[in-house]
Amino acid sequence: MTSVAAYAAPSAKAPLERTTVERRAVGEFDVLIDIKFAGICHSDIHQARDGWGEGIFPMVPGHEIAGIVTETGPGVTKFAVGDRVGVGCMVDSCRECDNCEAGLEQYCVKGNTGTYNALDKNGAPTYGGYSTHIVVDENYTLRIPDGLSLDEAAPLLCAGITTYSPLKHWNAGPGKKVAVVGMGGLGHVGVKIAHALGAEVTVLSQSLRKRDDGLKLGADHYYATSDPKTFEDLSGTFDIILSTVSAPLDFGAYLSLLKTDGALVNVGAPEEPISVNLFSLIGGRKSLSGSGIGGIQETQEMLDFCAAHGFGAEIELIAASEINEAYERVLNSDVRYRFVIDTATI
Amino acid sequence: MTSVAAYAAPSAKAPLERTTVERRAVGEFDVLIDIKFAGICHSDIHQARDGWGEGIFPMVPGHEIAGIVTETGPGVTKFAVGDRVGVGCMVDSCRECDNCEAGLEQYCVKGNTGTYNALDKNGAPTYGGYSTHIVVDENYTLRIPDGLSLDEAAPLLCAGITTYSPLKHWNAGPGKKVAVVGMGGLGHVGVKIAHALGAEVTVLSQSLRKRDDGLKLGADHYYATSDPKTFEDLSGTFDIILSTVSAPLDFGAYLSLLKTDGALVNVGAPEEPISVNLFSLIGGRKSLSGSGIGGIQETQEMLDFCAAHGFGAEIELIAASEINEAYERVLNSDVRYRFVIDTATI
Repeated sequence: MTSVAAYAAPSAKAPLERTTVERRAVGEFDVLIDIKFAGICHSDIHQARDGWGEGIFPMVPGHEIAGIVTETGPGVTKFAVGDRVGVGCMVDSCRECDNCEAGLEQYCVKGNTGTYNALDKNGAPTYGGYSTHIVVDENYTLRIPDGLSLDEAAPLLCAGITTYSPLKHWNAGPGKKVAVVGMGGLGHVGVKIAHALGAEVTVLSQSLRKRDDGLKLGADHYYATSDPKTFEDLSGTFDIILSTVSAPLDFGAYLSLLKTDGALVNVGAPEEPISVNLFSLIGGRKSLSGSGIGGIQETQEMLDFCAAHGFGAEIELIAASEINEAYERVLNSDVRYRFVIDTATI
Repeated sequence: MTSVAAYAAPSAKAPLERTTVERRAVGEFDVLIDIKFAGICHSDIHQARDGWGEGIFPMVPGHEIAGIVTETGPGVTKFAVGDRVGVGCMVDSCRECDNCEAGLEQYCVKGNTGTYNALDKNGAPTYGGYSTHIVVDENYTLRIPDGLSLDEAAPLLCAGITTYSPLKHWNAGPGKKVAVVGMGGLGHVGVKIAHALGAEVTVLSQSLRKRDDGLKLGADHYYATSDPKTFEDLSGTFDIILSTVSAPLDFGAYLSLLKTDGALVNVGAPEEPISVNLFSLIGGRKSLSGSGIGGIQETQEMLDFCAAHGFGAEIELIAASEINEAYERVLNSDVRYRFVIDTATI
């Protein structure tokens, strides 16, 4: 056990403050990571403020982690000291179920172990990336390719894989028309990835405020959803609509934008149940679907893909002391497009 | 124009009564069909009673039609006098859009022409199968294979294709676990088709009342959804759940019965919007989907498939004078499993 510096929410809804937490000793298959950067995901705020109602406090959020390996357990074969690595939303899973065996650890039937706000196999709480160090099993550690800077890579560990996985699963690519709903932390990476996959990309955002950025990141078209004409003009257009927002949409209106056999895939979701008329699905063999992060192998594939295409996330680098302010700004959609904490400031 | 006998609802909610309607002259590509049998679909009742609010009256329902060709237009090449034929839910479509060209006439972007309660290209109302004769374009006419009796074939034109199309689309077959929700007119055919496709079939019905029938038709398992234990026992079981019911389900509960990547496909649907928590989809990359009938070529494929496997629908043959009573019995789920009108009694 080693004490390391971290920023934690001491209790639900309390501001985050500097503290120390205990990291386990480096086990046989573990790597010790000197965290360099940690992204701030909207779900960090949900959990730190206990929006989902099951928080373990004190809570050290952060599941968009990039750093350097500084120690390896004796059984580690995949990584060496000095390697550039990342950690995403999970640090373990059962490794035995059909989903784990299929590389779908995110859907482990026994539940994967979250990077923070979870209990590990030994019943100890997990602590996330707003910290100077973390100890992680090598099998849940990703390699960050040399072409990616660590700060811009960090958000890919959640925002990147959460958009990459469904875009691949629903076959985004040449000849496909993809809409990305929301130009936030997830959406802006989704635009880059969908464009890099070769799809024709449309951003559907509340306003045209971020239009120039959207087009620069790879969008072919940009529409404001506050304009009812958008829904007339784009009726029956898309093969895939990727919704990254957690606001309750008018799902009937969005489903009407799909072609026959199209899918509206939600990676963001409102906490409350949504309402939809099933005739919106029947008239065109459409699907309302969901997707959660991605598997370990697919996350590595995503990092390699982004490096090969020369992009990471668009970030605003902040000091740890600015975390609470950054949370407020995220809630006000006032970030372009992901806050990343420089953990040297913790 | 020829006057032919029919049973029609003279106005919304009025009982059906014997009348005559005009059939168009046999055009260049038309066949005149001597209707032998017409199935009663739940949606006939909806429309005759104007549940969907846009009825054209007088209305002659019936889109599960089986009969014999008695005349052909000069341009007809697919059928000859004496052929055993069927007509389903549509009698025309634009024939030009991407969906029509792909054999998905049911999703014609300009809207297909319903067999009844619709306006044809010339603006004339269409009249359905509760009648002695109908004139239909050969391209929207199906061939009923010799192995199928006409009375048992009739319901396949709607109930058969409505279940066959999604089962094929979502890859029901060997190694797949399929649940059919509802053991009614659609559900009982869905069980037969899913079984014939090689899937492991489970019926999810309100009670165990029709269990023996379900197992006889090909179900491997039969569960009562009124028993909460069903949802515990079957958690994470199915690749495909085909819902044939129009009652509002507890969609969260049914989605929990799907495996990762599973689809809950609705071919029945409540008129009101349904409520669902999107986290039920995200936690397992699941889909809530819909499907409507099937294309013309696929309907032929379905008829050939059923004939090859030696089954039609399970029917109760009735006289035309019993239609109104049959409607009440359908609404009370008191039919095993499809009423078919012997049109010789009109």
